[in-house]
Amino acid sequence: MEQLAIGIDLGGTNLKGVIINESGESRHLTRIRTNAEKGGDHVLESILTMIDSLIQKEGSKKNIIGVGIGTPGFVDQDGTVTGGAENLPGWKGTQLYAPVEEKFGLKAVAANDVTVTAYAEWKYGAGQGVSNMVCFALGTGIGGGIVIDNKLYKGTHGMAGELGHIVVETNGFPCKCGQSGCVEQYASGKGIVNVARRVAKEMVSDNTPFVEYVNSNPEDLGAKSLYKNFVEIDNPDPVGWKMHETVCDMLARAIGFALNTLAPDKVVLGGGVMKSGKIMLEGISKFVPRYCWPAILERCEIVTAALGEDAGVLGSGAMVFGEKNCA
Amino acid sequence: MEQLAIGIDLGGTNLKGVIINESGESRHLTRIRTNAEKGGDHVLESILTMIDSLIQKEGSKKNIIGVGIGTPGFVDQDGTVTGGAENLPGWKGTQLYAPVEEKFGLKAVAANDVTVTAYAEWKYGAGQGVSNMVCFALGTGIGGGIVIDNKLYKGTHGMAGELGHIVVETNGFPCKCGQSGCVEQYASGKGIVNVARRVAKEMVSDNTPFVEYVNSNPEDLGAKSLYKNFVEIDNPDPVGWKMHETVCDMLARAIGFALNTLAPDKVVLGGGVMKSGKIMLEGISKFVPRYCWPAILERCEIVTAALGEDAGVLGSGAMVFGEKNCA
Repeated sequence: MEQLAIGIDLGGTNLKGVIINESGESRHLTRIRTNAEKGGDHVLESILTMIDSLIQKEGSKKNIIGVGIGTPGFVDQDGTVTGGAENLPGWKGTQLYAPVEEKFGLKAVAANDVTVTAYAEWKYGAGQGVSNMVCFALGTGIGGGIVIDNKLYKGTHGMAGELGHIVVETNGFPCKCGQSGCVEQYASGKGIVNVARRVAKEMVSDNTPFVEYVNSNPEDLGAKSLYKNFVEIDNPDPVGWKMHETVCDMLARAIGFALNTLAPDKVVLGGGVMKSGKIMLEGISKFVPRYCWPAILERCEIVTAALGEDAGVLGSGAMVFGEKNCA
Repeated sequence: MEQLAIGIDLGGTNLKGVIINESGESRHLTRIRTNAEKGGDHVLESILTMIDSLIQKEGSKKNIIGVGIGTPGFVDQDGTVTGGAENLPGWKGTQLYAPVEEKFGLKAVAANDVTVTAYAEWKYGAGQGVSNMVCFALGTGIGGGIVIDNKLYKGTHGMAGELGHIVVETNGFPCKCGQSGCVEQYASGKGIVNVARRVAKEMVSDNTPFVEYVNSNPEDLGAKSLYKNFVEIDNPDPVGWKMHETVCDMLARAIGFALNTLAPDKVVLGGGVMKSGKIMLEGISKFVPRYCWPAILERCEIVTAALGEDAGVLGSGAMVFGEKNCA
């Protein structure tokens, strides 16, 4: 009998669900709007409805051994969302395990949405085959996930892997978390724009096209177009290049700290920022040796993520196979 | 039948051995000189002789289930010392498991000496009762150890926990590891002296007793006397206090990075520097919030180590009970 799991990936915009087996083969992928503004109860109801619908599509729940849920924020060991999900009003305090068990008789396991993405990369993507892996998800913000000794490491309160808030510059850019100089403020989509504005201001006398463009304060200033127009071209803009190197330097610091702490076999870098994968990897490789014990770096590979945007929902389902409490 | 383990703690100066049970009750504690200058073969021979002598003292090896060895440097999964033990000439490349198994028919397990100290603190000391713990050993240098989900985390190549080489200041003090700005250069015994010299030079016009003393370049400038004479007094020297705050700030950065990465339940701080435990903890508590996500810090306790200088040999033995390959 093939064992199956339901994977649920909750985001601020979309809610996704899928049925998968342990090899990662999936079916019935479903996506609806989260409608976060309707509040936490509505979101929980949508999750339960989606689970019900997936069971209907499968025709039976007899082979389904559990439900894995990825959610923004932190999830405690008993399945309660304890915070950190600012884009989901009323979500904090929601208990996830009890309603799934009551309604469907299925055990549930939940974790931070970036953590489950990391788990998917380890089980089905760029991290396959290694025992210890660290993943940075470089999107609008920066999240992280850690696999230790072939298991997802969540920390006692589901808070491990807050890699976006590693401080890489003392008295640096302020962050909404209360710290200053978090790597998220330099190497996420938003962070790259911070760096662009700073170098364009500092190097205003260079008067390059990049400097002129950034200092004209276009409303749509975005990491993607900055890279496309000033960095990923045959003759990169020198100030644009300075932006790129600063971004890579800051990211390399956080990677170096993670390496010296965990000595992982692989570091996987995913998220929208890594769409400029080659140039980012080259830049990071230049700076990481400054922040990492050489013998550790020698034994670690830094790679781009292999899975696409469905990594989260696959990782959520995969957790069910990896967690004892769903066995 | 009570199961027993042999613990061996190899240091640059002394070699220690003990027999312990899983509760940490120990007997036959033995200590001899390492005589590191005689080379790796001699050191290995001394370890085997010590194991033999401990078995003789016990009268039988029938209750002994394995041998745990703590050693400077890195130990690979097969028990080979792969490097990082500069104070033991000829030690790199030594295979530890085979000779113990051949000579005594006992399985061996080995790890970095600081890592085993951390394990002892978790099992018998300040880290008891938590699932996830990070330990900093602040001695002549800085080492680290990590317990994840109630298991010692060594990394695939035994290199995890190089917390002393987390970079806390860009372009900071050069370190023998090749990086610049490693926390070891600021908050170890030697690091505190580095900081003392820097603040005394920068604040030379303040002309305090601390500035005069440090700038007179006494040969015996040491962290202990600097703290005793200028910091841990009723009216601390203002420049000496600046040294203290810089040390705590730098250490707090490394602690903050470890917290954001691992969200441990406890951070245990040990080693000679923590003999000024109260004042160090107060200083660190002031700075850690600048480098750590508040929700993570709220759920973590930062404490001083509870075990004395025999932590290493106890932790080495304790590993035998914790490692599956010695079951």
